[in-house]
Amino acid sequence: MRTVEWRDDRLFLVDQRKLPWKLEYLSLEGPDAVARAISDMAVRGAPAIGAAAAFGMALAARVALSDGLVGELLRERLQGAAEMLKSSRPTAVNLAWAVERQMRLAEKVGYSEPGALADALLAEAQRIADEDVEVNRRMGRYGADLIEDGFTILHHCNTGALATVDYGTALGVIRAAHEQGKRIHVLLDETRPRLQGARLSAWELKQLGIPFHIIADNAAGHFMRTGQVDLVLVGADRVAANGDVANKIGTYKLAVTARENGIPFYSVAPTSTIDLSIATGDDIPIEERDPAEVRTAFGHPIVPDDYPALNPAFDVTPHRYLTGIVTENGIAYPPFGVNLRRAVEGSL
Amino acid sequence: MRTVEWRDDRLFLVDQRKLPWKLEYLSLEGPDAVARAISDMAVRGAPAIGAAAAFGMALAARVALSDGLVGELLRERLQGAAEMLKSSRPTAVNLAWAVERQMRLAEKVGYSEPGALADALLAEAQRIADEDVEVNRRMGRYGADLIEDGFTILHHCNTGALATVDYGTALGVIRAAHEQGKRIHVLLDETRPRLQGARLSAWELKQLGIPFHIIADNAAGHFMRTGQVDLVLVGADRVAANGDVANKIGTYKLAVTARENGIPFYSVAPTSTIDLSIATGDDIPIEERDPAEVRTAFGHPIVPDDYPALNPAFDVTPHRYLTGIVTENGIAYPPFGVNLRRAVEGSL
Repeated sequence: MRTVEWRDDRLFLVDQRKLPWKLEYLSLEGPDAVARAISDMAVRGAPAIGAAAAFGMALAARVALSDGLVGELLRERLQGAAEMLKSSRPTAVNLAWAVERQMRLAEKVGYSEPGALADALLAEAQRIADEDVEVNRRMGRYGADLIEDGFTILHHCNTGALATVDYGTALGVIRAAHEQGKRIHVLLDETRPRLQGARLSAWELKQLGIPFHIIADNAAGHFMRTGQVDLVLVGADRVAANGDVANKIGTYKLAVTARENGIPFYSVAPTSTIDLSIATGDDIPIEERDPAEVRTAFGHPIVPDDYPALNPAFDVTPHRYLTGIVTENGIAYPPFGVNLRRAVEGSL
Repeated sequence: MRTVEWRDDRLFLVDQRKLPWKLEYLSLEGPDAVARAISDMAVRGAPAIGAAAAFGMALAARVALSDGLVGELLRERLQGAAEMLKSSRPTAVNLAWAVERQMRLAEKVGYSEPGALADALLAEAQRIADEDVEVNRRMGRYGADLIEDGFTILHHCNTGALATVDYGTALGVIRAAHEQGKRIHVLLDETRPRLQGARLSAWELKQLGIPFHIIADNAAGHFMRTGQVDLVLVGADRVAANGDVANKIGTYKLAVTARENGIPFYSVAPTSTIDLSIATGDDIPIEERDPAEVRTAFGHPIVPDDYPALNPAFDVTPHRYLTGIVTENGIAYPPFGVNLRRAVEGSL
């Protein structure tokens, strides 16, 4: 089953807060439940939340249909759902990308036939989900060329099937190399505070039979400096027009250290993550999450509740630290300003 | 009460595994219990384990006295204790430094009067402990000159009273600046896997009334890149003759990122931590600890026991990333080869 899947008139999502201990699915029937699942990080990963939000818009149309809404009232309902879903998390652009794609379709189909609109939005959500899987497989093929037999790859956060509809972005590239028979070894940053690397990426690699070790985020520099890392692969939550990449907190320090050690550093990002409307990473909004995430580990308290903490969820890696950006249309290299535009236009 | 204190014929140590939830003391009566407290990290921090090991040697002499050992048998007993204590953790040189200082004294006093030897070793351990506190205060005075009113200081691991006999090294510098009335703010790396920053440094700063926020180790780069850090201060577990610094895992990535952002980066290290017998950081042994520390957070499981993990406890920061090294004899700047030797000789 996919991470984000429509079945029996409902949206099913893997509840990623329970892994690796339990594989459980949430079953959602309205857009507010989808927004909550996104903000609580029951579903996370830029492509996965994009697809979930697309289904959230389809659910909004279905609920409006059963409420008997039509015309302007239906439009207002959908616009409200769109705003709610877009604001559920601020950094990943896939959320806005998917919701706006659905709103453009709604405007085109119109609001006079609620049943037809609901069907159209559901079909479009399915297309977005199917496209995501196809896009990931294409990125996997391009990216796997970067991996040689015997490589150790350092990976941050989770970018696998769980972060997408299926297959994955950076972990998808690793998976593709493994499927090609290359012998690889992955060092997984545990990725505090929410431990997506230790909990989710490790769980996925275990299913796939790809050798790995979990490391504390602090240890990545040691392995790089002592020549034990051949390649660093990360995902992206939003890529600015100049190639600056917003990604899970910790990515920036990794990228700086990789460059310092001459280790290639790639972000694997579908074009849905590239935001040409934003000039540089400085304009990307960085989500500040609840400091309680830092005061706890997987729900278990580390320090008392009154110890102050700060919890930025993402950081920005300036484009000069990136060797390249793997997209479904090929690998963009510097100058990123030109080549990311080409990637988005499919003319790389 | 001190972190390492002799009282009622026994060695008392703060049990640092319990903080910040409980302030409890271990009471130890033999050298094997001291070695176990060091390897289990009930006591940790290079200067603290040095002082604890010095008392461990005094305890060895007392136990030998009550066992009626004298002459060569007494010497063998002490040599055995010295080996056990030195091997309880490999990276911090203070351990070997303190134990060898005690063995030199034992050789000088001789093994014919066990009572006199036991008294001499206890008095020397007290001197080592008292010197540590005095040395920390002197480093505090030198280092505080680096801190301006309004500074935000980034700090890694714990280097406070808990990492020493009292007062602290890098946190001692922060404490000295605070005592001078400078308004400062500290960002505390939580310091996975054992969370010494979140658990111990935060606990200390709370007692001292110094404003701080705990951050995930991953977040340090974000705060540096966005201009929110004025100075980085860390401790040291061993400094090589050329200025390469072995310190808590994660220090290297911090140092690289600080230099990239033009932020001054200092290690605060008493001369007992400087190992002129070792040419470069490549020769410093790096302790690999139990991977279970990575699979858990403060004892709470994050992932199943069969998920593979790697757990290097220290990394080496090459000297070119260091702005300076604060010692009790002044601040050593490059060229470190010359100036560290001067610091050790007291002629800086």
